[in-house]
Amino acid sequence: MSVLETIQGPADLAGLSEQQLADLAREIREFLVAKVSRTGGHLGPNLGVVEITLAIHRVFDSPRDRILFDVGHQAYVHKILTGRQAGFDQLRRKGGLSGYPSRQESVHDVIENSHASAALSYADGLAKAYQLRGEDRHVVVVVGDGALTGGMAWEALNNIAAAKDRRIVIIVNDNGRSYTPTVGGLASYLNALRTNPRYEQVLELVKRSLNRTPIVGAPVYDVLHGVKRGLKDVLVPQGLFEDLGLKYVGPIDGHDRAAVEHALEQAKRFGGPVLVHCVTRKGYGYHIAEQDEADCFHSPPTFDPATGIPLTGSEPKWTSIFREELVEIGRQRPDVVAITAAMEHPTGLDAFAREFPDRCFDVGIAEQHAVTSAAGLAMGGMHPVVAIYSTFFNRAFDQVLMDVALHRCPVTFVLDRSGVTGEDGPSHHGMWDLSILQVVPGLRIAAPRDGTRLRELLWQAVGIDDGPTVLRFPKGAVPDDVPAVDRVGGCDILVRTGEPDVLVVAVGAMATTCVDVASRLAGHGIGVTVVDPRWVKPVDPVLIDLARQHRLVVSVEDNGRVGGVGAALGLALADAGVPTPLHVAGIAQEFLQHGSRSELLADLGLSAQALARDIVERVASLEGAPLDALAGGEHDPLPRG
Amino acid sequence: MSVLETIQGPADLAGLSEQQLADLAREIREFLVAKVSRTGGHLGPNLGVVEITLAIHRVFDSPRDRILFDVGHQAYVHKILTGRQAGFDQLRRKGGLSGYPSRQESVHDVIENSHASAALSYADGLAKAYQLRGEDRHVVVVVGDGALTGGMAWEALNNIAAAKDRRIVIIVNDNGRSYTPTVGGLASYLNALRTNPRYEQVLELVKRSLNRTPIVGAPVYDVLHGVKRGLKDVLVPQGLFEDLGLKYVGPIDGHDRAAVEHALEQAKRFGGPVLVHCVTRKGYGYHIAEQDEADCFHSPPTFDPATGIPLTGSEPKWTSIFREELVEIGRQRPDVVAITAAMEHPTGLDAFAREFPDRCFDVGIAEQHAVTSAAGLAMGGMHPVVAIYSTFFNRAFDQVLMDVALHRCPVTFVLDRSGVTGEDGPSHHGMWDLSILQVVPGLRIAAPRDGTRLRELLWQAVGIDDGPTVLRFPKGAVPDDVPAVDRVGGCDILVRTGEPDVLVVAVGAMATTCVDVASRLAGHGIGVTVVDPRWVKPVDPVLIDLARQHRLVVSVEDNGRVGGVGAALGLALADAGVPTPLHVAGIAQEFLQHGSRSELLADLGLSAQALARDIVERVASLEGAPLDALAGGEHDPLPRG
Repeated sequence: MSVLETIQGPADLAGLSEQQLADLAREIREFLVAKVSRTGGHLGPNLGVVEITLAIHRVFDSPRDRILFDVGHQAYVHKILTGRQAGFDQLRRKGGLSGYPSRQESVHDVIENSHASAALSYADGLAKAYQLRGEDRHVVVVVGDGALTGGMAWEALNNIAAAKDRRIVIIVNDNGRSYTPTVGGLASYLNALRTNPRYEQVLELVKRSLNRTPIVGAPVYDVLHGVKRGLKDVLVPQGLFEDLGLKYVGPIDGHDRAAVEHALEQAKRFGGPVLVHCVTRKGYGYHIAEQDEADCFHSPPTFDPATGIPLTGSEPKWTSIFREELVEIGRQRPDVVAITAAMEHPTGLDAFAREFPDRCFDVGIAEQHAVTSAAGLAMGGMHPVVAIYSTFFNRAFDQVLMDVALHRCPVTFVLDRSGVTGEDGPSHHGMWDLSILQVVPGLRIAAPRDGTRLRELLWQAVGIDDGPTVLRFPKGAVPDDVPAVDRVGGCDILVRTGEPDVLVVAVGAMATTCVDVASRLAGHGIGVTVVDPRWVKPVDPVLIDLARQHRLVVSVEDNGRVGGVGAALGLALADAGVPTPLHVAGIAQEFLQHGSRSELLADLGLSAQALARDIVERVASLEGAPLDALAGGEHDPLPRG
Repeated sequence: MSVLETIQGPADLAGLSEQQLADLAREIREFLVAKVSRTGGHLGPNLGVVEITLAIHRVFDSPRDRILFDVGHQAYVHKILTGRQAGFDQLRRKGGLSGYPSRQESVHDVIENSHASAALSYADGLAKAYQLRGEDRHVVVVVGDGALTGGMAWEALNNIAAAKDRRIVIIVNDNGRSYTPTVGGLASYLNALRTNPRYEQVLELVKRSLNRTPIVGAPVYDVLHGVKRGLKDVLVPQGLFEDLGLKYVGPIDGHDRAAVEHALEQAKRFGGPVLVHCVTRKGYGYHIAEQDEADCFHSPPTFDPATGIPLTGSEPKWTSIFREELVEIGRQRPDVVAITAAMEHPTGLDAFAREFPDRCFDVGIAEQHAVTSAAGLAMGGMHPVVAIYSTFFNRAFDQVLMDVALHRCPVTFVLDRSGVTGEDGPSHHGMWDLSILQVVPGLRIAAPRDGTRLRELLWQAVGIDDGPTVLRFPKGAVPDDVPAVDRVGGCDILVRTGEPDVLVVAVGAMATTCVDVASRLAGHGIGVTVVDPRWVKPVDPVLIDLARQHRLVVSVEDNGRVGGVGAALGLALADAGVPTPLHVAGIAQEFLQHGSRSELLADLGLSAQALARDIVERVASLEGAPLDALAGGEHDPLPRG
């Protein structure tokens, strides 16, 4: 029986010997590689926090003490240690184990949000509450060095540092990277701490003694711990954190479990806020991840554990098309620059950065700064392209509104992972952008339906010089091109069949589905026009005219139903006095769980089948509906008031 | 002729003697007090930056070099020195001089947004653009110590510090306060720099030599400058900023123009990013402001310059009612805590803070942290009330969505200054909240129509324990109570006259106007029901039923027309198959300039007169309209498609 099999909860860690703990760390890494290779998921970050997580659960008493994982994808080891090993076969599958902490899954989980740099603020709030209620509980936060580049982290540290008597232990998991190496002045500072010569000597001693294997073996750690502890206590660099008034402990070798435990014991006894600086390696113990220069196997799809080679196909992705086209734009437009918030590879800016290193800026996990520095670049005469995942763009709403739009700056925002994104769950679905951006005066939004339109619209966007533009597209494989049968104004007509019964307004990637819907409706004798407005904000006047000519309008968008493209169309129709009824199809305005994109869309009634069935029923309830539709059978006409 | 009268632009500062410059500083202060006492406006902050602004314009070459004022309300002196003295008689009046930088007004103005902590990010972008374009220009940023508590500032500093060859001069205007004293670890650190013993000795020397008068006179400065400069160069504390890699100069006496100039000359020559730490006093030189403990005359209404006593009446404000009621709640509910982002007085939390100092948290200008630490407090068993101006709440949209709503935390947000706020212009109008918050699952929004409802709804909000709540109300005087004539479900019926022709859905403070509209419509023989839903999100089913019974629905909200309460009602009506036409009355979705609330509302068609006229026309265009309305004359019936 392995040690891992004996661990049903944190309490089971207490009686283990050093040897058993070392075995357990190795077994956890083997478990992670075996499971994640079969499901996909976050691997590199979790391989890096095995010892830290073991140490936390040995020193603190969860759930009485609260353990917060910033970003959350580094909580797999925590899940393994809190009774959820069995769930890993269904990791990130619909109905299966979440890839993030989940309060439904376990009392040991606290925060479910995966947006970086937030955990310190929760910690401040929790510690304030415990202090007011007289509860003697510790709050432990694990936060990456990358997340410290985010403004929220600074706001929180500024507050945490000021209260000397709240029990917050901040473990900085410093692996020197987000996806890619961490940037900025803070990164240089952390690097200076890491390369403190006294610390280096200690590490050297440890390294020489380590019996390294691909899956890390049980080293001759124990004899060294005494030496290291003695030395560690003198290694307390003064500096940035202590200037803020935060007790600093470190740097600690984050793969030396006993050393981390020792530091955490110290921190626990301190009675006030403490920052424990642990130096780790992303992907540690799995040589293929350690040697992966792109992102240390940050979040691979299914792969062969022996070689690291992905098992999934490599059909072209939306991101790849953006990646290619931006380089072409860069060649022809020397004023175009690119900005990423610590996600150069995932957003597809890597190729641009390679060819134009001076014109690509990684600002850290700092969406606010990404957006407002783009405003500055635009004011200085450049045209910035800011590539951000849709869900993270919410962090910079105010900056888009006040810094970019108020000043009518020509900045292009490219929102990858819009709409239903799949396995990462509620805090990753990009179902908000088309709603909150509707209110931004002067902002134009394009939603390409396929790869060709993505290229065309990107060129159009960077050609607009009197205000900001947004391009949004989903995660995953790009569909086959959907040709237009006609063009009216700025709108592409994708289908025009039979009488003008139903106008389907297809937003972006939903076009493929809408064309499918049209052919299903043709079988019911319902005439359909499918139109792709390409630019969905502002509302194209062509849509008003088309709506007037039809008996029913249905808008279909991969976005929340409230306040999106359909809602804006509804306002425009009402303002124009067009009485044609409008049905807004979109994502129910609720937090959406994890699952595959197609599963979730089907659940939401956004499959071609579900949309067609719904439209048949709506048409049947219109006065003078076509006979075929009325004869369709199972529908339940809606009351008309 | 005063020196001030000779200054038409920054170039005129070049030839002045030390004596003339000292006279000019005094004259500027006299000018500021005289003008702002007659118009209202930001006084304290501008009195504090007279010497800094003079020094900037003598050392740098605007508009070639770019001068950025964070927050913007500290740009009055800059306006005075760039040819806009004459505009101060119409300061903040409709069509008059803006209270913030305005690119329409002057080529010397760069950023118009008044949200704190953003200027450093613009500066980073501008400097990147100039570097790429090979333009040899400096970017100068004036930023308060308070604004450094905001996360954006950290994100920007982290980036600025990393680029050694971009010419950014950051002037920290350190007066130790935002409205109230600056909080947190950073504040302690700055305080430590300020109280550096060597620096204190120098200041002491200066102070003893200063001939202080209420409006500061011309002191025997000149002889001291040599001494101070010599000493200043050795006063370079190592620490936080230099750990980030940012060259630090200071601390400098920010009221010693020559010393500031000397530091800026140094900074200019340095060729890379430099932070110049200037210590100033808010309200400096006007003893009434200096001695004002609340906020150093931050932004007074019109007042008597001799006494500082306000000239305006003191009718009860929305804020005062909230202030009072929260204290009462605090007495009965020990779990209720309050949070402010550096605006304890303006948001009305001061009384609560006085009575429950342990339960009121000022987190700095850090809306993100305010919201997420509230989530933590809620998870820890408290019920936080977060009081924030509506416009600043946009900074924390992501945190409201992901940190509070996703976790269904019982947090109450109180959004003062919602809707049309008046004199502060586009970045202060709170016209976004009802739209962007519509998308947040599980969030409930209340809009009180008067003081009594504010009290009632606040109690209801803090009584809700399964998710977040928002209360929003405007700036200014609270209207007389508007009684209900009936109650249906959760909705108050305010007026019910004649036939059920028009249903007016009155949102919050627009209720008073809507009641007026109803009496005007009665004169046209149009029957009106005015309903106040009190809770405007989610849509009350009662509204659906009422809409079904009427011939026209008009929603009236002090919020952008796109995506607000009216839009949500429209979606609900469509989903329920209610065919009654809906007109959404609200703020045109454009950036709204400054002016008084009543002027702006009238311009927007949101006066009772304009609304009534519009409704008469709409009713007339309905089939079977009442005769009186059709006979009303001037209307121009809208086409019905």
